[in-house]
Amino acid sequence: MALSGRHCDAVYHSRPLFFRRAGLMTMLNPQLKQPLYLQLAEQLSDDIQTGVYPVGQKVPSVRRMSELRGVSVSTVSQAYARLEDLGWLSARPQSGYYVCSNRRPECRHEQLPLSSPEEQPTEVTKSALITNMLAQLNHPSLINFGAAIPDSSFLPLRQLQRHIQQVSRYQTRQALEYQFAPGYEGLRQQLAVRMSNAGIHCHSDDIIITNGCAEAITLCLRAATQPGDLIAVESPCYYGFLQLASTVGLKVIEIPTDPETGMSLEALQLALSQWPIKLIALTSRFSNPSGALMPTRRQEKLVELANRFDVGIVEDDIYGEISFAETSAAGRKQAQEDGSFSVAKAFDRDGRVMYCSSFSKTLSAGLRVGWCVPGRWYQQVIDEQTFTTFSSSSLSQRVVHSYLQNSHYDRHLRQLRRQVTDNLPQFVDAVERYFPEGTRINVPKGGYTIWVALPEQANAERLYYLARERSISLVPGSLFTNSDQFDHCVRLNIAHPWSDQTHQALKTLGALAQQLADGDP
Amino acid sequence: MALSGRHCDAVYHSRPLFFRRAGLMTMLNPQLKQPLYLQLAEQLSDDIQTGVYPVGQKVPSVRRMSELRGVSVSTVSQAYARLEDLGWLSARPQSGYYVCSNRRPECRHEQLPLSSPEEQPTEVTKSALITNMLAQLNHPSLINFGAAIPDSSFLPLRQLQRHIQQVSRYQTRQALEYQFAPGYEGLRQQLAVRMSNAGIHCHSDDIIITNGCAEAITLCLRAATQPGDLIAVESPCYYGFLQLASTVGLKVIEIPTDPETGMSLEALQLALSQWPIKLIALTSRFSNPSGALMPTRRQEKLVELANRFDVGIVEDDIYGEISFAETSAAGRKQAQEDGSFSVAKAFDRDGRVMYCSSFSKTLSAGLRVGWCVPGRWYQQVIDEQTFTTFSSSSLSQRVVHSYLQNSHYDRHLRQLRRQVTDNLPQFVDAVERYFPEGTRINVPKGGYTIWVALPEQANAERLYYLARERSISLVPGSLFTNSDQFDHCVRLNIAHPWSDQTHQALKTLGALAQQLADGDP
Repeated sequence: MALSGRHCDAVYHSRPLFFRRAGLMTMLNPQLKQPLYLQLAEQLSDDIQTGVYPVGQKVPSVRRMSELRGVSVSTVSQAYARLEDLGWLSARPQSGYYVCSNRRPECRHEQLPLSSPEEQPTEVTKSALITNMLAQLNHPSLINFGAAIPDSSFLPLRQLQRHIQQVSRYQTRQALEYQFAPGYEGLRQQLAVRMSNAGIHCHSDDIIITNGCAEAITLCLRAATQPGDLIAVESPCYYGFLQLASTVGLKVIEIPTDPETGMSLEALQLALSQWPIKLIALTSRFSNPSGALMPTRRQEKLVELANRFDVGIVEDDIYGEISFAETSAAGRKQAQEDGSFSVAKAFDRDGRVMYCSSFSKTLSAGLRVGWCVPGRWYQQVIDEQTFTTFSSSSLSQRVVHSYLQNSHYDRHLRQLRRQVTDNLPQFVDAVERYFPEGTRINVPKGGYTIWVALPEQANAERLYYLARERSISLVPGSLFTNSDQFDHCVRLNIAHPWSDQTHQALKTLGALAQQLADGDP
Repeated sequence: MALSGRHCDAVYHSRPLFFRRAGLMTMLNPQLKQPLYLQLAEQLSDDIQTGVYPVGQKVPSVRRMSELRGVSVSTVSQAYARLEDLGWLSARPQSGYYVCSNRRPECRHEQLPLSSPEEQPTEVTKSALITNMLAQLNHPSLINFGAAIPDSSFLPLRQLQRHIQQVSRYQTRQALEYQFAPGYEGLRQQLAVRMSNAGIHCHSDDIIITNGCAEAITLCLRAATQPGDLIAVESPCYYGFLQLASTVGLKVIEIPTDPETGMSLEALQLALSQWPIKLIALTSRFSNPSGALMPTRRQEKLVELANRFDVGIVEDDIYGEISFAETSAAGRKQAQEDGSFSVAKAFDRDGRVMYCSSFSKTLSAGLRVGWCVPGRWYQQVIDEQTFTTFSSSSLSQRVVHSYLQNSHYDRHLRQLRRQVTDNLPQFVDAVERYFPEGTRINVPKGGYTIWVALPEQANAERLYYLARERSISLVPGSLFTNSDQFDHCVRLNIAHPWSDQTHQALKTLGALAQQLADGDP
């Protein structure tokens, strides 16, 4: 409870700015004659800000509130609807209204600058480090700020359970027999429809089901490159790209990347003109680890560049569905321009963008169901998959298909986004409060992670080991680059239920980071 | 019924030889004073031979037979047990006694000779052919002599269904969350125990769970070779080896192979001394397509050769559990020497044999659960898998684990072996009867396929296309070599229930082959 109080203080102090922006300011003017429902909405938003109704908690039912405040049920309904529009409340079906936070946290500290990687292609030298570190990450820890996956309490386990039972009952044979590449047609048809949300218009026959996004990326990289080829990646980039480059025998060049808007196209263009780059591998939406979101017009320009220099693109969109913007109507509009609802693949006219994604981050990682749309490399991907894994598990493919058929998924995604969005300010506040002076933080527009730069003297790998002793996991920045530029950065997973334990763990991390920043061994 | 009659004639004519061998001859001598049960056993074996009780059918229950023949229940029980010992009947739990055929079919035609492949390393030139052909094979056909998998009626679908339900109910979270390489420990522990049946003594920590045997082989090939390396394969060999060699960028040299005893070690030794072979890829038990079984002492000698020349071995044991020998005690003893119950990996002292197998051929191909024991290349295999597929589906791994825990598997394997064993003489008889003069056939000691050499002028790819028009699938021999030496051979899958339709399809195939042999376009 001490936590709630403290947290509410923080919310209270930081709110006024947002409050004005959100247009509620006019309602606070006592000179205006307001309808009852607006007055109630105003009172309730005050209550939310002062912590009467903490973020994540349920507010009284419409009927109960009408009793409490002595107004009609219809007035309360209108007030709740107003607060929902403004992003203070969210409705959960069959449950009620919950307090949420749709503010994009404001940082006291300066934003992270454009990265400055090596300007030369390099062999990947860190694959051993990455593998060792990941072996550690997979060990259970009390507080998992490590792996970028949502806590299982955020996932629809019970619904999936029901669909597993249904598939095993009604599709026994099909779920147990071979499903060869390109995978189950029913699922591919659903994917073709879903991808149109991101502006991708393709046929189910363009899609190949894979064992998660990792296999999709591997197959695409192998299809479009030869050992010894050079690929361009973000900086920082998903460590899997580096590891795979090493596995496949590729060299990488890291392109300066803005933590807000993604890979610098100016720097990319320069690199394309200087080096024999074969392929660009990137995550245009909610990149891992920085959370960068490439604006729509830059996504388009990226594809133009790829056309001009005749190179391929592997686009990893695994976090694409986790946009924080969809919680309010106003946010949604802005997000259209930000790039939250489009991908580079949407601008691909000649099949050079190989789009990859999966259900591992939003539904279940254990089912191993991902997919790719490999464009002109379709046949190479099929050929490679046919003799390496054949396809993903038939059972898994049919479970996902059965689940998607019942339109559970969109409802689940809304709830998942809401849960992560609610967590974001709490994490940002805690980092700002407890981490050493000079800490900078990139507040993402989607995904599951925040990217935190400690003061330069604090070594993140040391922090990682110190935290492990206290059963807290995190990923040190050194894994996301082939250079040493992120040795003081950490990636924190924010996709678990906020609790006293989480709060204490961030406080502990902050104290450890402070020690390291102070040069304390 | 016409079929049964005709078939029984065939059985009748070909039986006497076996009959004498099996030692029942003495019982037919009316001068001997026999116990009642032996006399009954004798009468019944006569009935089986004359088709009163056709192969595959259930004989009357012990109680019913005692009524029919006017003898005690105990006499019938003893007679049935005697017939079981002799291989005429097999007991199925909770069902009764079934007529079976444990004779190893005798061929009228000469056996297939040692193969004579190119004596030079070659690039794999047939990968496109293989992929196209397989895309066709995956289309549904009325009669599937193509893919080397058992008909789904041979698989324990209902039991698996129950285990899927149990896992989804009691291990929901674990079945849906990441299971990283090397895979689920419980399953690895079961595998370590199972592999001791084949003489492999390893720890669960030596095992890596994979997406089927195909991924196991891929990971092992990639771990132990570099693009451009040369590997030695059987001739004919599993087309996946050729396709993967092409994918990974390896050259292959085909080693002359005996359809009975497998790869010629003499030819292998010569090749090892002449060429820079990096790795030998083979199937020592029930090789695909020939069904060759490398005798135990040759398996041992193979490993000695690999030691001497310091090369690795990828051993694909996917058909290892399907030995035809286990149906009688006498057969079992012979099979020990034949190699049915051992593998090359059992003789591996320094981790150079990479053992690969899966449950795809015996339980479910759709679950995608295989494994490997990659010896000295363990870490490379883990590293590669970690970033390509992570592991097999958690759900699938736990379903197999749950199934194995209840000792269903051994009972199922016994029944599966029996079903395939019962089919073998029927297929061989039909091929001998309907296929053109000069057809040779290799009768395997295990696995799911028979390898048939048509007269040389009959082109098997042409036969494949002609058969497809009649909704019959098969695999032409050209897929199993990089040369043209098997252009007149076909692989037929015998693992489906014998029926009029199967019989008719073989008759049709025979007529088509006759046309081709006659030079009829």
